[in-house]
Amino acid sequence: MGDGAGVGPEIIVKALADREVYRQVRPLVIGDLKVLARARSFVSGVTPDLRSCRNPGEAHYLPGTIDVIDLDNLTADLIPGQVQARAGKAAYEYIAKAVELALAGQVDAVCTAPLNKEALHLAGYSFPGHTEILAHLSGTSDYAMLLAGGPLRVIHVTTHVGLQEACNRITTSRVLTVIKLAHQVLVKVLPQTPRIAVAGLNPHAGEGGLFGREEIEAIIPAVLEAQAMGYEVTGPVPPDTVFWKAVQGQYDIVVAMYHDQGHIPVKLLGFETGVNVTVGLPFIRTSVDHGTAFDIAGTGQADPRSLLEALKLAGQLTGK
Amino acid sequence: MGDGAGVGPEIIVKALADREVYRQVRPLVIGDLKVLARARSFVSGVTPDLRSCRNPGEAHYLPGTIDVIDLDNLTADLIPGQVQARAGKAAYEYIAKAVELALAGQVDAVCTAPLNKEALHLAGYSFPGHTEILAHLSGTSDYAMLLAGGPLRVIHVTTHVGLQEACNRITTSRVLTVIKLAHQVLVKVLPQTPRIAVAGLNPHAGEGGLFGREEIEAIIPAVLEAQAMGYEVTGPVPPDTVFWKAVQGQYDIVVAMYHDQGHIPVKLLGFETGVNVTVGLPFIRTSVDHGTAFDIAGTGQADPRSLLEALKLAGQLTGK
Repeated sequence: MGDGAGVGPEIIVKALADREVYRQVRPLVIGDLKVLARARSFVSGVTPDLRSCRNPGEAHYLPGTIDVIDLDNLTADLIPGQVQARAGKAAYEYIAKAVELALAGQVDAVCTAPLNKEALHLAGYSFPGHTEILAHLSGTSDYAMLLAGGPLRVIHVTTHVGLQEACNRITTSRVLTVIKLAHQVLVKVLPQTPRIAVAGLNPHAGEGGLFGREEIEAIIPAVLEAQAMGYEVTGPVPPDTVFWKAVQGQYDIVVAMYHDQGHIPVKLLGFETGVNVTVGLPFIRTSVDHGTAFDIAGTGQADPRSLLEALKLAGQLTGK
Repeated sequence: MGDGAGVGPEIIVKALADREVYRQVRPLVIGDLKVLARARSFVSGVTPDLRSCRNPGEAHYLPGTIDVIDLDNLTADLIPGQVQARAGKAAYEYIAKAVELALAGQVDAVCTAPLNKEALHLAGYSFPGHTEILAHLSGTSDYAMLLAGGPLRVIHVTTHVGLQEACNRITTSRVLTVIKLAHQVLVKVLPQTPRIAVAGLNPHAGEGGLFGREEIEAIIPAVLEAQAMGYEVTGPVPPDTVFWKAVQGQYDIVVAMYHDQGHIPVKLLGFETGVNVTVGLPFIRTSVDHGTAFDIAGTGQADPRSLLEALKLAGQLTGK
């Protein structure tokens, strides 16, 4: 459910009022029933039943009802749109429960609503976001953020670090790991061998060392090694043309070196429908590609499209 | 004319065969007549007359003819699609002549076809590109590259340097200079006060210092100073949303911190029609937004749209 004071509860109610979702996945919310009931009252024209259950086996997965594992860890006086430690704590508990169920094989995938980092920190959890919590709770070290939106898929070598630090983290082994993760996730959804493009870090992909040496020292060795292992991989491709080429259909995914290299094109072409996937965890995990939107939380205006796309993609990735 | 072995001569012949151009500008080519005549033979269905003249006063500027200041510095055995020192040398001479005419007020604007950097270097000119030659020949120190394409305009704080080095060059004075240059060029073409957005350098514009401190130390002070001086400027805006907001019409231009931050969105939305403007020179300068395309030079396939847009924008910027 994410942060109960954000738009999470509202987009869940809106998305799960869409009957089509139930043909794609069997959704089960891990959250707080009171807060979901209140969110239902914010959203006009949508009146699904909220149904409490103790475990996935008890859920009915029927359109018109929303099955909830109610952790009952919030109170109805939670203020929408404000950073609150108790909401951060509660959000952490939803994730912990989801990881427990996923690792036990009781759910096929985890799909997350937005967290508020500040609230999480106030509650004593010093993680930068969902992804790092999931990696921590599942003991995963090699993972990467994949963003899908509009016609593009992008997977990131680095994400939530400053740009200088991102440059320092471009190593052959990390680039190779991310190429492998890109292949691993796409073989599940594509009929053909995934065609992977690796973006350069520097302008013109370094122009032979003139504009930076990371391509020569880290990226090219990783691409050569991946090619030798049989991956269908190209690069480093100049960053300012690789996304255009991907949109033209030349590649199935782009390996981006830093957060904004990948986020700028995906947000430009798929602003409302972006989906975030964490690749490399022992279970499938997708997420909305937006924040808690505290400025509109409690108004019922939040757009559920990103969540709908995230649920759909989670279903596709299970291969069922 | 740019590098005579690249697509420059062909796109010139194609673009100047378009009669509409002559309503927007009075075009005069500085190049080599023989090489242009050969390019005309590559391009099917286009047969403008080529007419030599010694200075802008002698040109006729009539549709169906192309006026050329013929520097006669190449020979007909120049090989299309190959790096050649003599083509680099000749290209430099076209620029030098154009700057001479522009500084003397004999032409209103300079519009350039693509150079080949390697050919330029072989000829003994160690400039990274056109822009730096123009700045050097005109004694300009404060200038910036503006890219316009599709619905976006972007001006760059740094361009042809490695990403690590670009981070080092984000200073308050440079960001402020580029904000001023953005305003200066847009007041000529917009009816209202230019609305300028400044992108952050780091993910989420640094998230309060968590992901890098350049926003706090350099960008925010520049924005505050520009606001105090009366510029209509906002920022730092997170890099992954600023271009989307600009496309939605919130800003007239985005100040990008590095080459690919600006080039990725512009190339994605205006790949064939991008125009490059050097802002800050003592004359107007626009350019195509592509390279010499040696792989297709001599085939007549090159697309003249970027050159057509560059000519049109040069005309608009003169305000005539």
